[in-house]
Amino acid sequence: MKGATAYAAAFELGKVIPVRAVGQIERSNAQGFEVGELVWGFLGWEQYSLVSDPISLRKIDPTLGSISYNISCLGMPGLTAYVGMLDLGRPVAGETVFVSAASGAVGQLAGQLARMAGCRVVGSAGSDEKVRHIVEKLRFDAAFNYKTEESLERALEMHCPAGVDVYFDNVGGDMLDAVLARLNTFGRISVCGQISEYEGTPKGLKNFSALVHKRAAITGFIIYDHMDKFDAFLPKMAAWLAAGDVVYYEDIVEGLDRIPAAFIGMLRGENLGKRLVKVGSDPTLQ
Amino acid sequence: MKGATAYAAAFELGKVIPVRAVGQIERSNAQGFEVGELVWGFLGWEQYSLVSDPISLRKIDPTLGSISYNISCLGMPGLTAYVGMLDLGRPVAGETVFVSAASGAVGQLAGQLARMAGCRVVGSAGSDEKVRHIVEKLRFDAAFNYKTEESLERALEMHCPAGVDVYFDNVGGDMLDAVLARLNTFGRISVCGQISEYEGTPKGLKNFSALVHKRAAITGFIIYDHMDKFDAFLPKMAAWLAAGDVVYYEDIVEGLDRIPAAFIGMLRGENLGKRLVKVGSDPTLQ
Repeated sequence: MKGATAYAAAFELGKVIPVRAVGQIERSNAQGFEVGELVWGFLGWEQYSLVSDPISLRKIDPTLGSISYNISCLGMPGLTAYVGMLDLGRPVAGETVFVSAASGAVGQLAGQLARMAGCRVVGSAGSDEKVRHIVEKLRFDAAFNYKTEESLERALEMHCPAGVDVYFDNVGGDMLDAVLARLNTFGRISVCGQISEYEGTPKGLKNFSALVHKRAAITGFIIYDHMDKFDAFLPKMAAWLAAGDVVYYEDIVEGLDRIPAAFIGMLRGENLGKRLVKVGSDPTLQ
Repeated sequence: MKGATAYAAAFELGKVIPVRAVGQIERSNAQGFEVGELVWGFLGWEQYSLVSDPISLRKIDPTLGSISYNISCLGMPGLTAYVGMLDLGRPVAGETVFVSAASGAVGQLAGQLARMAGCRVVGSAGSDEKVRHIVEKLRFDAAFNYKTEESLERALEMHCPAGVDVYFDNVGGDMLDAVLARLNTFGRISVCGQISEYEGTPKGLKNFSALVHKRAAITGFIIYDHMDKFDAFLPKMAAWLAAGDVVYYEDIVEGLDRIPAAFIGMLRGENLGKRLVKVGSDPTLQ
């Protein structure tokens, strides 16, 4: 309900809605920013943006991959997976790592980073197509469709027979409760999002008291607090992508007029991978 | 319910019930343990104990304080407060620290350690007498009686006007929910116990989703995992006690036959301070 109020205030007629976007400099009065250069940062939901604080922009190195990667795997979603999994989850080879929303913008990377650390990686998603994608394309060890499982605890028991050591939580709610019941001693839970709790009254966590006897740590985080890690993250993730250790999927919708539908569809889980909206041509492909 | 089953199994007729206790060596076949020496460790609820693994015993230095301190402030309850507050809570001068069960075996020390770190320290307890004790004797900045407050959130708002940065949780349940609502950004919660959840069906945490936007960390711990810190802890705590920086209150019941009543009374919160049962005389006082 708080969220709804905030959105209403954000969507004012005539007001630019900021969004993390890739752009090419068309005109510049700012030192160090030349016409034709590619940048990313907070621009608007629009085809041309006026940026009064260019210091907030980051320059794009197009040799690192598709320029859209700068707002997906090489940008905030990538850093979110990196910090939440490696710094907070601290996966150790041989452990079992579970990721919810595992085909999403952040989840797909979180799981692959854990696989690279030598873990058994299990994901959940909301369609059979996503489940196949997670196993076949993202190379998780297992995945399940949380919408069709009779019991989340049963599904976790089947796919994580040795329990869960690290949980990368994108959804909160019932899934978090089910993971708490399957969590191993010294388990770590990185809480990245709680999409199940964004609307309505929270049902409340029932298995929270498992925390003490399992000596578990649950940490919520917001990626803006970890921007100091960006410069270390970027070349590493770019190298993993280049080597094929990590793959990344984007779900790109074209056209400014399709933004509302693209956004609502993302909240409904229609996207397979990071949802982006393309409002202009990619100059590196011309 | 699990707890009840475990207790039932533990209390078998004719079986020694182990308990952490102080004793004096009466006879010894073990090298390094001389008759007359004082030790502490797992003995029995009895006047004379046979210890087959003397390596589990620790020798007592009676110059550090009352010998009972070795099973209170200089023993496991002390180490629990030390690790849970300093290592997990990481209080910083100027922050607000809240401790539930604040007059208890662990809580009284947890709060005093935070006060020594320069924090505003607030406690809760279950009687007005305890509340007075917490403020007057333990020198917390404020305390309240959770049984007579109409709203825990209101009480926290009043006593922690700048929010809560660190919560040392001994009780779980509604109090934890109320603290989550008042928790500051980057707040830390050390979950030491959840006595409110030990019986019946857990009601569930409602405010758990605060964790993400508050970037908070909640860590459950069991002190046995931190025994490697004991040797660093002991001289420090002894020095703080000797200097009067920290005070400690024990609630001693005398007589082997009063053990059941003493134990049940402790679960009911009748004790003011660490409840101990004295089953013999203190040789250092003779």
